[in-house]
Amino acid sequence: ARDMVAEGLIDRNEAVRRVPAGQLDQLLHPIIDPSVRAVPLCVGLPASPGAASGVAVFDPDSAEVRNAAGDAVILVRDETTPEDFHGIVAARAVLTARGGMTSHAAVVARGMGKCAIVGCKDIEVDLEHRRFSVDGTQICEGDWLTLDGATGRVFAGNLATIPSEVVRVTSGAITAASSPVYQSYSELLGWADEVRSLKVRANADTPRDARIARAFGAEGIGLCRTEHMFFEGDRITSMREMIVARDELGRRRALAKLLPMQRGDFEGIFEAMNGLPVTIRLLDPPLHEFLPHGGEEGKLLARTLNVPRSELHRIVESLRESNPMLGHRGCRLGITFPEITEMQGRAIFEAAVRAMRRGIDVRPEIMIPLVSTVAEFDHQRAILEEAAQQVMGVMGENVDYLIGTMIELPRAALTADEIARSAQFFSFGTNDLTQTTYGLSRDDAGRFLPAYIESGIFGDDPFQVLDARGVGRLIRIAVEEGRRVRPDLKLGICGEHGGEPRSVALCHQMGLDYVSCSPFRVPIARLAAAHAALDAK
Amino acid sequence: ARDMVAEGLIDRNEAVRRVPAGQLDQLLHPIIDPSVRAVPLCVGLPASPGAASGVAVFDPDSAEVRNAAGDAVILVRDETTPEDFHGIVAARAVLTARGGMTSHAAVVARGMGKCAIVGCKDIEVDLEHRRFSVDGTQICEGDWLTLDGATGRVFAGNLATIPSEVVRVTSGAITAASSPVYQSYSELLGWADEVRSLKVRANADTPRDARIARAFGAEGIGLCRTEHMFFEGDRITSMREMIVARDELGRRRALAKLLPMQRGDFEGIFEAMNGLPVTIRLLDPPLHEFLPHGGEEGKLLARTLNVPRSELHRIVESLRESNPMLGHRGCRLGITFPEITEMQGRAIFEAAVRAMRRGIDVRPEIMIPLVSTVAEFDHQRAILEEAAQQVMGVMGENVDYLIGTMIELPRAALTADEIARSAQFFSFGTNDLTQTTYGLSRDDAGRFLPAYIESGIFGDDPFQVLDARGVGRLIRIAVEEGRRVRPDLKLGICGEHGGEPRSVALCHQMGLDYVSCSPFRVPIARLAAAHAALDAK
Repeated sequence: ARDMVAEGLIDRNEAVRRVPAGQLDQLLHPIIDPSVRAVPLCVGLPASPGAASGVAVFDPDSAEVRNAAGDAVILVRDETTPEDFHGIVAARAVLTARGGMTSHAAVVARGMGKCAIVGCKDIEVDLEHRRFSVDGTQICEGDWLTLDGATGRVFAGNLATIPSEVVRVTSGAITAASSPVYQSYSELLGWADEVRSLKVRANADTPRDARIARAFGAEGIGLCRTEHMFFEGDRITSMREMIVARDELGRRRALAKLLPMQRGDFEGIFEAMNGLPVTIRLLDPPLHEFLPHGGEEGKLLARTLNVPRSELHRIVESLRESNPMLGHRGCRLGITFPEITEMQGRAIFEAAVRAMRRGIDVRPEIMIPLVSTVAEFDHQRAILEEAAQQVMGVMGENVDYLIGTMIELPRAALTADEIARSAQFFSFGTNDLTQTTYGLSRDDAGRFLPAYIESGIFGDDPFQVLDARGVGRLIRIAVEEGRRVRPDLKLGICGEHGGEPRSVALCHQMGLDYVSCSPFRVPIARLAAAHAALDAK
Repeated sequence: ARDMVAEGLIDRNEAVRRVPAGQLDQLLHPIIDPSVRAVPLCVGLPASPGAASGVAVFDPDSAEVRNAAGDAVILVRDETTPEDFHGIVAARAVLTARGGMTSHAAVVARGMGKCAIVGCKDIEVDLEHRRFSVDGTQICEGDWLTLDGATGRVFAGNLATIPSEVVRVTSGAITAASSPVYQSYSELLGWADEVRSLKVRANADTPRDARIARAFGAEGIGLCRTEHMFFEGDRITSMREMIVARDELGRRRALAKLLPMQRGDFEGIFEAMNGLPVTIRLLDPPLHEFLPHGGEEGKLLARTLNVPRSELHRIVESLRESNPMLGHRGCRLGITFPEITEMQGRAIFEAAVRAMRRGIDVRPEIMIPLVSTVAEFDHQRAILEEAAQQVMGVMGENVDYLIGTMIELPRAALTADEIARSAQFFSFGTNDLTQTTYGLSRDDAGRFLPAYIESGIFGDDPFQVLDARGVGRLIRIAVEEGRRVRPDLKLGICGEHGGEPRSVALCHQMGLDYVSCSPFRVPIARLAAAHAALDAK
């Protein structure tokens, strides 16, 4: 298309129009060398594109150990939980036997731009013997695997992969001048940026992710999930100390240890996004996700925290939930334990002041999750404003900030006018909003959703393509009624849909200000936003 | 108030108006003899009114055994699951350490008009030693307890209780003529029935419950939960055989055993409700609720079904869900396993024909649960219509029936116009609709909901009092848009809210045709519906 523009055959807009946004994916991820011929072991759901080879490992700790020893590893699990996070970080790719396109493994890997194949039903993971079998073939720990995340194919052995040129340029490995592919890509996206009105942000949880996002053209961070920071290194121990504390004093003691770590992360993210908005979501997942569930790790934790094992077991059991997705999480945590919100608020404002003192233009937007009534929002906002006043008073600097909310529950959308009187922005959490609108758990849908789509009962997987009729209607209600009471209400989405071309088009039509997606999907969203703008002309 | 009418001081409507609907509760349930003075052991949530004494038992099987031996028993559990059903049936009352006002124990006990105290946090249940302790006092299996469900108080010992006169009349133990209290009650409700426009149905799962409901004035059954039939006696074994079957043939074999049992129940219910509508909901809960989770029962089941224990364990594990509330349940089961819907359809129509041949006026309304799109509804409707044609063809009788749906997911309400083109009635499942609209699990809310209500973040517990602003808005959308495409669309609610006076008033305002509630709440709903009609004048 670029050549045709050069030749004067089509104009720039037509060039932008002719490149399907989804096609950019292949420019961004490594692929298996097309000259290699091999028969796949099995095929799962292509949850996150890219090709990767590595040795199979079956638990996150082994992944970390082998990665530290210099091995390329592929983490193979029945399904992953937040406790696998460090294993996913250490792995080149993730393969799971269960879970759908928006299961934990899929979402986390996609967020990291890392290859993932999930819901690969044919494999049977035998954790005890550290192997899996598929159709009689056994793959043991240490055996090589190659995954093609674009097609969901899993191969035995170490197949050759080719890295993407575009990524090598954005990561600084090669220069733009040496890459004609990058130049085309870059020029095309430049044209796209000229026509689109929808802004594109990225979901990024660390300074490193923020830098990658910016290199891909993100115009801010739409979702920084603070909980991911709590899983790294020794932080999980302080987090667990907070959870098992008997009283507020004990919680505050543990939170005091977490504060400087969070502050450091936020400062790094503000630095990476100098001049751009950074939306930080307060702690969201239920606390039991941070605790070990028995076994060696439980024993160790009891010793580290000096808590009797029976007491620790009792705490873990008392936090167990029937439906964690609908349980004690989001702002419900911050309301039960205001000291958590207070710590997070302090960490954000202290980081902001420190960054400002270094000349960085800081634009924090603090986001309160899982709000269902304006009273919940007001409760949390008051704590954050108090923290802001304290920090700014002590440090003698003024930080410009916004406080807004996720709209991820139907009730929040249906009462958007009340909430918008108090909230300065809405970010539609379309993953959770889809789950609650459909009454459908992402993690459990794998058992029947494929059949639903195959038989046409669902036209699309609603976790991949935003549902215009149901979820979209709630968003429209919230946009319209929210803007009616606050005309300058900032509106965006931060679900996985933000990187899916048809969903991006819908967001444009619904009048949102921005979409936010995984860093590696930012170029796709930029192009899709341009398509939406051109289609509306 | 009745005396004042007799004396000509006030008219009948004013008499109806002066009696608070909630006050009827005390006329319907036994109470602890007010002359007895005792200090409660502890206080929990008053989940279902009434007073009951019995010996403590700690598992459903013991409850059944002791009840069969003639003991009055009180089932004490950490929390209950559907597997405790037969134990709740056998018990006089239920006491749980965990769970909220709409936990399993609370809902089931309320449905049975049986006393329950839940979420009694001070008690620590020691299942292994079959005892519980509270503040140093130990209550062992066989020790007497007395529960006051109206106040949540738990007493040690066997305190004297007084049965309700009204119940003794409706159950036929004494005559109406001998009970002035019953005469007042009956006359007042007669006046209430004259002014109300909202009909009142009952949620009843067995012929016995249906008879009780009718005695309390129910004008139909609004919710017959077919799954409760599967837990009784040996049926659970056939149900489990169906679940662990390897293929459709195996499932059909097990379903063939269940069919005559379901048919018999339906016939009994049709008989009890002669001339009144009976709404039958297809199988709703996730299949794992029917399976034992390891232990002796698992061993026994493996032997009974002749399945290797490892295979049974694998099946149980494979059905485990992260969020069962949002998982493979409702019509999703009937779509994955159409033979289940087919069996249930056949059982309903065969029962209807058999009852008709005995001169019974049968009005089945078949309800498809957990619909989120009209395509799901159409899929299930086609199977039911096919079953109807087959049964009516073979048996040579014509049954008048309706096929409708639960509206219990926000998406169903938001797409009501599409669904109403296909569905002949909507029944708002306000329990689940509240859960999904708020993103709040009834079973997990206990950890923070009391604090929310205490601090005023929630004005009311939305599981007790229907939320007019959020859930109510969805209902209004569905009522308005559903009736627009089908003016004679029948509309009702079948959640727990149907027996709560303020919620009944809201249902009247929203233009519903009926509410449906537990049999023991029918009189309250009748009076509340009259109040709503009077208030609207």
